[in-house]
Amino acid sequence: MFVTPGGGRRTIREGARRPLERYADFLPLSSVDARLSLGEGGTPLLRLTRIGSRLGLPGLYAKDETRNPTGSFKDRGTVVAVMKAAASGLRRIGTVSTGNMAVSTSAYGARAGLETFLLLKEGTSDVAIRAAAAYGPRLISVDGDYGRLFHRSLEAGRALGLPFLNSVDPFRMEGYKVTGYEIYEQLGRRAPAFLFVPVSAGGHFLGLLRAFEDLEKELLIGGVPVLVGVQAEGCAPLVRAFEAGRPRCERLDRVRTIAHAISNPAPPAGAAVLRAVRERGGLLVSVSDEEMLAARSELALREGLSCQPESATVLAALSRLVDGGTVARGDEIVLVLTGRGHGADQASGPLSLPVRRMPLDGLERDIRDMIGLEV
Amino acid sequence: MFVTPGGGRRTIREGARRPLERYADFLPLSSVDARLSLGEGGTPLLRLTRIGSRLGLPGLYAKDETRNPTGSFKDRGTVVAVMKAAASGLRRIGTVSTGNMAVSTSAYGARAGLETFLLLKEGTSDVAIRAAAAYGPRLISVDGDYGRLFHRSLEAGRALGLPFLNSVDPFRMEGYKVTGYEIYEQLGRRAPAFLFVPVSAGGHFLGLLRAFEDLEKELLIGGVPVLVGVQAEGCAPLVRAFEAGRPRCERLDRVRTIAHAISNPAPPAGAAVLRAVRERGGLLVSVSDEEMLAARSELALREGLSCQPESATVLAALSRLVDGGTVARGDEIVLVLTGRGHGADQASGPLSLPVRRMPLDGLERDIRDMIGLEV
Repeated sequence: MFVTPGGGRRTIREGARRPLERYADFLPLSSVDARLSLGEGGTPLLRLTRIGSRLGLPGLYAKDETRNPTGSFKDRGTVVAVMKAAASGLRRIGTVSTGNMAVSTSAYGARAGLETFLLLKEGTSDVAIRAAAAYGPRLISVDGDYGRLFHRSLEAGRALGLPFLNSVDPFRMEGYKVTGYEIYEQLGRRAPAFLFVPVSAGGHFLGLLRAFEDLEKELLIGGVPVLVGVQAEGCAPLVRAFEAGRPRCERLDRVRTIAHAISNPAPPAGAAVLRAVRERGGLLVSVSDEEMLAARSELALREGLSCQPESATVLAALSRLVDGGTVARGDEIVLVLTGRGHGADQASGPLSLPVRRMPLDGLERDIRDMIGLEV
Repeated sequence: MFVTPGGGRRTIREGARRPLERYADFLPLSSVDARLSLGEGGTPLLRLTRIGSRLGLPGLYAKDETRNPTGSFKDRGTVVAVMKAAASGLRRIGTVSTGNMAVSTSAYGARAGLETFLLLKEGTSDVAIRAAAAYGPRLISVDGDYGRLFHRSLEAGRALGLPFLNSVDPFRMEGYKVTGYEIYEQLGRRAPAFLFVPVSAGGHFLGLLRAFEDLEKELLIGGVPVLVGVQAEGCAPLVRAFEAGRPRCERLDRVRTIAHAISNPAPPAGAAVLRAVRERGGLLVSVSDEEMLAARSELALREGLSCQPESATVLAALSRLVDGGTVARGDEIVLVLTGRGHGADQASGPLSLPVRRMPLDGLERDIRDMIGLEV
């Protein structure tokens, strides 16, 4: 059994409401500096009654990570990594980003009074760059290969005392664990049977798994959930390696998907994800762009939940596993909705929605017509 | 002293975590249907250390209502009004909207399986309409005066069994009270000295005041905060009436401000707001577009908080009251950040931000240059 340095078992601190304090036993922070927090975490676990009914799954839930301060799960990791940097007396941080990471790191950098360096990936949307720029970071566009940039930024950061809090930063991954502890408590102190999460670099996936492994070590649960990592068909190096039984990804030369936030052709934690999936009985699944867009619409139309297409991949993957018989009616299932996006896909183009015009004086009559005609 | 129908004093239900259950004694819901909730409320109260330091106010906080499910305080009212409509067996709801209200009502309507009718105000941004349309409402554009539309929609709704959950809907306003109870608890069971909130129709302002009046009646606090209602200079009918000592607003013929979400030339609850301000020692203040934009930048750059310009009016108004000596160093002050906006102001136009380009191989050298040059 795992024993903390103090000698005691790790437990949840019942009196604490802030997640980082409530789960402090499981985290590498000696203290929590509330001045650096933006109130991340504590996101709702919402039952999906109407979609659950369609799928024959009464125990279906969404963990709504879009509710974090800057709209994505990244905030949970950013706050831990920034607290570490600030506690070490550093004055600068950086990150390599495709959107959500840029916005999150810039916001927490501003909150902490640090200078934030953003290395922007080619193709990052103007809308996301604007959202990040509001917090005053230094914006840098780097010419060259993105996969190499990831590693080169870490090297440069070490030399310059400017940590790059990239997607698999160890403290960032510790922050992602908190989502797992919350799900456990929100389900009434149980692990779900299945936990679906989009997977790109691999840090979020591994953080969630570690949370349930922590709870297992403390004998709070009997076993970890089946973690289902979801990728886009047009960029699914992990799924390909998993299906071929290979221990690591082969680098993809071509990426073809609208799911930019999860299209990483060379996932930095790829080998660790593949090993974890094999050892813990997880799954890796890919879905098409059409499937993720349809799933996104269903979440909005039936449950009132809005998320970016990348996040809706989890519902598309669940539908596949239901069709294939992997998931059973009695299973408790949690879909992690990772982010709301920053409007890139909604911001442009003309409005082509069916808007009905009516005069003020004909309001009651015309609405009556609409109801009468279409009920 | 106020006594509830059951005969007891109203109290906070300590064991309940969901706000609508925790403050059920103070609300008109006989039960809470969790299936209709999107996890609204429970938003963070964040200390603004860095802005507070600039203003000489160590007790300065933001109540971050941008953290609600659809990004604004509207969700707190919408959920109560929708629960009432659903409990009454109604199948349709509607609202008259300028943006946030449309998105919020559409999301909760979808969650409850109701058909939602949106009467769109002229000038509502395409971005906001798209955000609302994702939830599948019926979109209607009405030709005619917006002030009259507000009242005509209520009449038509009564005739058609289709309640229009507009800005001063009584159940909506009950939902807004919850924010006040949360602030009281988050401050350690105290009322702040000042509470700043943008004011448009008046429903949010009155809901917040009623919350503290409830707490006063139950002898939980000694008196209500000074409520400061903030308007844009280009549309400030309440401020004009307040300064002229008039009991009601004179209708404005012209509106000139970027603050569309709070530009209501004929506030439906105007007379009630003016009476409340006089009787309870509140204040009404207006600020310019330039002041709100500067305040919005400061919230992002110094505190990592992003909100729409309309919401930043509260910080601009605070700066004025500090300059005028109304607010003192020892006062606890809460600014309500009402909404994040739906990107309308960030979505268009070319990107004109200072992005520095550098080659991958020169990364460390070029970043060193940036630091060296500018530290």
